[in-house]
Amino acid sequence: MGVRKIPSLAEAVRSELRTLFGPRVLLSRSEKGVYRYDAILVGPEPLAVVLPESREEVQALVRLARKHGLPLVPRGAGSGLSGGAVPEEGAIVVAFTRMTRLELDPKGRTAWAEPGVTTARISEEARPYGLFYPPDPASWRTSTLGGNLGENAGGPLCFKYGVTGDYVLELEFVDAFGELHHLSRQAYDLPGLLIGSEGTLGLITGVRVRLLPLPRHRATLMAAFPEVGALAQAVSRAIAQGAVPARLEFLDPICVNAVEDYLGMGLPRGHALLLAETDGDDLEVVQEELSLVEETAEGLGAKVQKARDEKEAEALWRARRSVSPALGRIRPKRVNEDIAVPRSHLPQVVQGISALGEAYGLVVAQFGHIGDGNLHPNILFDPKRESEERVWELAHEIARVALRHGGVLSGEHGIGLMKREFMREAVEEGTLEAFRTVKAVLDPQGLLNPGKVLP
Amino acid sequence: MGVRKIPSLAEAVRSELRTLFGPRVLLSRSEKGVYRYDAILVGPEPLAVVLPESREEVQALVRLARKHGLPLVPRGAGSGLSGGAVPEEGAIVVAFTRMTRLELDPKGRTAWAEPGVTTARISEEARPYGLFYPPDPASWRTSTLGGNLGENAGGPLCFKYGVTGDYVLELEFVDAFGELHHLSRQAYDLPGLLIGSEGTLGLITGVRVRLLPLPRHRATLMAAFPEVGALAQAVSRAIAQGAVPARLEFLDPICVNAVEDYLGMGLPRGHALLLAETDGDDLEVVQEELSLVEETAEGLGAKVQKARDEKEAEALWRARRSVSPALGRIRPKRVNEDIAVPRSHLPQVVQGISALGEAYGLVVAQFGHIGDGNLHPNILFDPKRESEERVWELAHEIARVALRHGGVLSGEHGIGLMKREFMREAVEEGTLEAFRTVKAVLDPQGLLNPGKVLP
Repeated sequence: MGVRKIPSLAEAVRSELRTLFGPRVLLSRSEKGVYRYDAILVGPEPLAVVLPESREEVQALVRLARKHGLPLVPRGAGSGLSGGAVPEEGAIVVAFTRMTRLELDPKGRTAWAEPGVTTARISEEARPYGLFYPPDPASWRTSTLGGNLGENAGGPLCFKYGVTGDYVLELEFVDAFGELHHLSRQAYDLPGLLIGSEGTLGLITGVRVRLLPLPRHRATLMAAFPEVGALAQAVSRAIAQGAVPARLEFLDPICVNAVEDYLGMGLPRGHALLLAETDGDDLEVVQEELSLVEETAEGLGAKVQKARDEKEAEALWRARRSVSPALGRIRPKRVNEDIAVPRSHLPQVVQGISALGEAYGLVVAQFGHIGDGNLHPNILFDPKRESEERVWELAHEIARVALRHGGVLSGEHGIGLMKREFMREAVEEGTLEAFRTVKAVLDPQGLLNPGKVLP
Repeated sequence: MGVRKIPSLAEAVRSELRTLFGPRVLLSRSEKGVYRYDAILVGPEPLAVVLPESREEVQALVRLARKHGLPLVPRGAGSGLSGGAVPEEGAIVVAFTRMTRLELDPKGRTAWAEPGVTTARISEEARPYGLFYPPDPASWRTSTLGGNLGENAGGPLCFKYGVTGDYVLELEFVDAFGELHHLSRQAYDLPGLLIGSEGTLGLITGVRVRLLPLPRHRATLMAAFPEVGALAQAVSRAIAQGAVPARLEFLDPICVNAVEDYLGMGLPRGHALLLAETDGDDLEVVQEELSLVEETAEGLGAKVQKARDEKEAEALWRARRSVSPALGRIRPKRVNEDIAVPRSHLPQVVQGISALGEAYGLVVAQFGHIGDGNLHPNILFDPKRESEERVWELAHEIARVALRHGGVLSGEHGIGLMKREFMREAVEEGTLEAFRTVKAVLDPQGLLNPGKVLP
């Protein structure tokens, strides 16, 4: 006679999940392995990965997790850069990639999107109506709206157009008790509280976003500076004179060399590059505004190249978008910082970070949305040759440079796992206590993306 | 021998307040009477009015109120339109009018302001640096930043530039426990939660706001339409064609006649008026954009008058700003609605509200920021001749029209006392429950502006 096995909690949960979600529960090690990563960190293997297809399924899943006291880790495309979607031990990953309904209302200039809709798709579908959705994180072809909302993502266009949260008119989410809420932004702005909370306060199941009319004209230039300080100064000066470019991106000489090694497109090695794009409905104004940037850059010793057509402009932007893959060829791993500082402090901050990198003997590449003072210092390293501990020590020092200059820990990537310990230095204890209270109220069991944001 | 009187709670509190605030506690009936009103409602006499001068004094006051379980009602200039600053029985009014420190950082394009700073003062002090602060509620010469933050106030410029909350970079507030918090908008956006919460979640003691470069040029026109529907259509059409005026204001024939009776400036009686202003740094574009509005308006039967200079433009805007006092001459009292509806529904909403007014036999004047679909239907009445109950019934019906057309209860004036009962119809019960939870956590004793926002 065989011994009848008492099923463990994990087995009971798996069986319930299979009943609810059928083949949309992933349980094998190989399938689950894919969901341990975001674009920067790796976590342990989750208990299960679930792919819900509707708000009702999300509600059912939350109730199940609540019953068993299991953590839920919401996830979009996994292109995040702070570990926000990385699971912890025993968690259920909620992958929203099957919730991809998108409904355009061109007359009202809005779109209703489920969280699995990819960022770029909104603008693609809106284009025939002469509309677009401005937030444009570098990963926008793969990143999802749910992930963008979780991290309140920005992108190059955010200097002129603002970040994800600025486009949210309504938000639908399932709370930690499995209740569904559909909110506009009146009375208490709970949507605003959910945006940027990295899935720790509720699971977003839908959003109504604002669309804008596409600008009729664009103009792009690349300015090569002998050194980074002059570039930062040019940016400060052009903006002070009233220029409002749509995009203002910067690559330091390490990035420029890496991209040139990678693409061989004739970039000026050893220089710091500024890419600027202006846009609008009047060609003359668009060009005038670009000329303002051009003259300021030349006044500070830059060599300026203007794109003559869309194709040339596209090539310049390809250089910017290739920074991440290009840096991957210098060292196999990197820690990607995401600080934001007041524009007037940019020259000192950029130089201070370079000096720190040299002092630590580690390669630090800097690029980012310099118009907003949003820098992405990347510490590149090889874990076989370089101490990971020193890398994190340096990351911490870089965060401190930002804080010393009145900056913040995250411009657009979120706090996630990576920077939550830094929060102790960035935010006063009383405020952290208020954050913890908000968390405890909206998620008393601590089931929603535990271990993120708050130290 | 005399009988020694045991001091009542009220007396004990008054004595403590006097010790803390000296002559900055108002206790006489005549002095307190001034603080019973906002611009629309009257409440009972408060226990005391306190005029703090620093964040530390606000903390001390909250601790005192907490000890005695007394409600605190924060107040700016009292120019609000939803009863948000109207006290309840036994409350302590916290009048922020003595906290008026304002520090400009022209290079960083920000300003740090205490809550008692008047809205217009920021732009006035920023002007020499070529900067301005866009939110411009009609009462901006008297309204305070604290009040603007409480109601998340907008104004004519909000169509192009957004509302108060869009300009907040940092927020300092005292919570219901007397703790001071200073927050930027990272991690959990508690500043966003406080903005628009009408003082029910914390007392704002300071704010850092963003400033913008002043546009170099402005152009203004007035278009007179034979009826309101055509005006609403012209607005929808011009915006659909890509016009982004800085201001788009509308007056219905009742308002036009009232202003003409008041100012005698030659307005076309019996017509609906559209006022449009475009702005920008390029004169040609500014004029082109205005022409787009002009042609659309003329195509729908309007007679257009363009301002030839600043003086003529100023006169046109004076007509708009005089609506409120002018309406006061038709009936002594009014209930001022503040609905916002999708732009495409404007013609039906405006006509539906007119029809309701006629059915109720009450005068309903309509004006507002028509570019945002933000209407201010004003029910004018004489309490001696007209039933106040029916006025409120009609107000409720008007709110229902907005909700039926996918609109919201408050465009910019807040919920306050006036519209909190309507919240039951505007927001689902589960969401109201979430609002109540947030309130209970941040203010467990219910001391901060009780009876506002939540039904």
